[in-house]
Amino acid sequence: MEVTRTLAKFIVNHRYTGVPENVRHEAARSFLNWIGCAVGAARHETVERALAALNEFSGPREATVLGRGDKLDIMLAALMNGMTSHTFDFDDTHLKSVIHPSGPVASAILALAERRPVKGDAFLHAFILGVEAECRIGNAVYPSHYDVGWHITATAGVFGAAAAAGRLLGLSEQQMVWALGIAATQSSGLREMFGTMCKPFHPGNAARNGLLAALLAQRDFTSSGQGIEAKRGFANVLSTAFKPGAVVDRLGEGWEISTNTYKPYACGIVEHPAIDGSIQLRGEHKLKAEDIESVALKVHPLVLELTGRKTPQSGLEGKFSVYHSCAVAIIHGAAGEAQYSDEAVRDPGVVALREKVTATVEKGVHEDQVHVTIRLKNGKVLEKHVEHAVGSLDRPMSDGDLEAKFRGLADGILSRAETDRLIRLCWDVGKLKDAAEVARASVPGGQGVKRAVS
Amino acid sequence: MEVTRTLAKFIVNHRYTGVPENVRHEAARSFLNWIGCAVGAARHETVERALAALNEFSGPREATVLGRGDKLDIMLAALMNGMTSHTFDFDDTHLKSVIHPSGPVASAILALAERRPVKGDAFLHAFILGVEAECRIGNAVYPSHYDVGWHITATAGVFGAAAAAGRLLGLSEQQMVWALGIAATQSSGLREMFGTMCKPFHPGNAARNGLLAALLAQRDFTSSGQGIEAKRGFANVLSTAFKPGAVVDRLGEGWEISTNTYKPYACGIVEHPAIDGSIQLRGEHKLKAEDIESVALKVHPLVLELTGRKTPQSGLEGKFSVYHSCAVAIIHGAAGEAQYSDEAVRDPGVVALREKVTATVEKGVHEDQVHVTIRLKNGKVLEKHVEHAVGSLDRPMSDGDLEAKFRGLADGILSRAETDRLIRLCWDVGKLKDAAEVARASVPGGQGVKRAVS
Repeated sequence: MEVTRTLAKFIVNHRYTGVPENVRHEAARSFLNWIGCAVGAARHETVERALAALNEFSGPREATVLGRGDKLDIMLAALMNGMTSHTFDFDDTHLKSVIHPSGPVASAILALAERRPVKGDAFLHAFILGVEAECRIGNAVYPSHYDVGWHITATAGVFGAAAAAGRLLGLSEQQMVWALGIAATQSSGLREMFGTMCKPFHPGNAARNGLLAALLAQRDFTSSGQGIEAKRGFANVLSTAFKPGAVVDRLGEGWEISTNTYKPYACGIVEHPAIDGSIQLRGEHKLKAEDIESVALKVHPLVLELTGRKTPQSGLEGKFSVYHSCAVAIIHGAAGEAQYSDEAVRDPGVVALREKVTATVEKGVHEDQVHVTIRLKNGKVLEKHVEHAVGSLDRPMSDGDLEAKFRGLADGILSRAETDRLIRLCWDVGKLKDAAEVARASVPGGQGVKRAVS
Repeated sequence: MEVTRTLAKFIVNHRYTGVPENVRHEAARSFLNWIGCAVGAARHETVERALAALNEFSGPREATVLGRGDKLDIMLAALMNGMTSHTFDFDDTHLKSVIHPSGPVASAILALAERRPVKGDAFLHAFILGVEAECRIGNAVYPSHYDVGWHITATAGVFGAAAAAGRLLGLSEQQMVWALGIAATQSSGLREMFGTMCKPFHPGNAARNGLLAALLAQRDFTSSGQGIEAKRGFANVLSTAFKPGAVVDRLGEGWEISTNTYKPYACGIVEHPAIDGSIQLRGEHKLKAEDIESVALKVHPLVLELTGRKTPQSGLEGKFSVYHSCAVAIIHGAAGEAQYSDEAVRDPGVVALREKVTATVEKGVHEDQVHVTIRLKNGKVLEKHVEHAVGSLDRPMSDGDLEAKFRGLADGILSRAETDRLIRLCWDVGKLKDAAEVARASVPGGQGVKRAVS
């Protein structure tokens, strides 16, 4: 089966008219969410250290580090934006492949768009095609590839970046075949790095290297014609069970981006039902922490396996504690980045409530479910069963939810007016005369906004 | 077993006085051979295309593309020099791991040395340590890693580049642990790319990414503390049989670079015995092609498997034809890059002799052996048994052989005087006040020398 060439042909020849309106809207939602995550983490220590290391090596400073004043050459900007957008682990998730699809693709092409002006429709189309390539390649090797230890957002992401950038560069079919091959031979990223700065480095690196692949292919730099499917190509070397049909079957008939999801809470997805249920009970009963005797969660086994940390000491550890997450949900009615600061985790009120939370595995509770029982000091018992957590495919975040999340992320980085404008540009990205306007609008310039240090 | 940290500790703390004189000399031989290969391929199409794609994205132009007038930022220069040095498949080979060790390591640190002046002894020491890290990591996963389909020069090379660059940057032990981890998570390169421009791209990419790893670690950008040995770290994800002792046992007691080898002929190593035997017979009997009735080779099975192409049509195909190689060896007494040009392969005299060559597999003939029987038109029969081909560990190329090879490579790129000076600097690299002098001396400046196009 001709996998690489068939995919290349599709990416090069597809027309935007073939993308239904609802898919375009989902792409705008993904893009909005991605920009928010990148802007929100713009001042994170991970980003500061990487920028300190790389800034002085920049070539022509044509592209923006989102949410900052800094400009870098397009490959370094792609690296930095892929990194910032994954720093909070708050970006989008393609559940079927557990890829976080926007980071590698959008980072590569937004940087490119600042160098080579591109209309919004062509930009959004390239974004959709890049996500399509990335997720299909991911589907074709998941789960064996992920189980071995590959961080699939990075390893598949480099193909998405190459495909989208190559499309914007107008590569021929043969050049696109080469670009995908040059991407294949750079595919890398280990799950061992989870919990270190290298995790967000991965989608950034995928963006940088995918862009490099497209730029080389544009100059007829050759690679294998079967980079994906050959015996010693990507899929067979990096996985033990390759499904080539997942890459090439029914191309253009459905769109992977239409199954994209967005996290309402800044932590692992397995905790989301518990947080959702707690926030619902809080709202319905105007709950106050001091009235609560105990909180009992009935959960899926993965919840305790992945997030069973009883006494987290730092913000990062708090993300792996369903007890902490439940406590902040009840106290703050939210579980955003602010609820996972070191301060939030050490807050005496949060600690006191956290100690009243128990979680037990209950047979028959699915990953997307939870049963919450809150016993009040006055003897009253409140219960909530969550069938599908908000943010799941069955109960997606609304456009309004996504805007609210964006505002929470941009708070402290951009002014209110800047945030409003940026949100509007993201929704309209497919109609802009110049897609790069979004990147420029992410730079804080107003009064009272934190300024670039460098 | 603490693999990554033990290796990091060694790289950071080792003292040059612990490197015996013969090891230093072998390092200089490796370096000389590497510079020659890089200079020789400086005008190759592969290099021209890559440079055309990347030149305009360069940051501060602090480092030299060897054998050219072009300067690039240190990461792009590392990429280009790693690429040029492997373009002819003529660089060094660490036979135990089949790594071509110098490319990734020397490319990274020579570029760095142009930015941060470094004395020759520190440079050569970092080079030796980088090769040590790279080859030990390669030994620890070879052969399962290679058999799966990884191009080990790339996948292990990124560690060597990170280690050597990190040593020159003066990283702390913890930073070196991180650098090795950042290298691990960028490890990539597929054997599927052999025969395309991506093959030489691999050591260049390893140099670029290893250097990036060291620069990030210098700013305390974190990674796993067990990037090499963890369950989901490099060795377990990219191989099925990891021997951790090969990385950490008896560090500093022996040196991998002392088992490095150099190719006398610009083709696959399996053909070398046949070429060697043919050249010996030519010399001993003043052979002329027109006197020859037939040439019969008795060879190891791999010779026909890898280089059994009967009627090559291009220079590249000629490299995979033991018949062509044998013919040029008899006619030209050499098998350098010139003997693998398209013209050489189509030369009627070469074609005529090639058709008289037969090769048969003989049981008991080892990889390093050949038996050559030449029957002359006058009835005379000449025989030559080669026990170890020149260039093997048992019959290494002499310093003079290496110089002659260097001159052949530099011919047409540098003037005679420039070549003389560059050879002298390579031999003396460990004693230079400024190691970067070698890079500057590789730039052609004399009359009658091909000039940079860009």
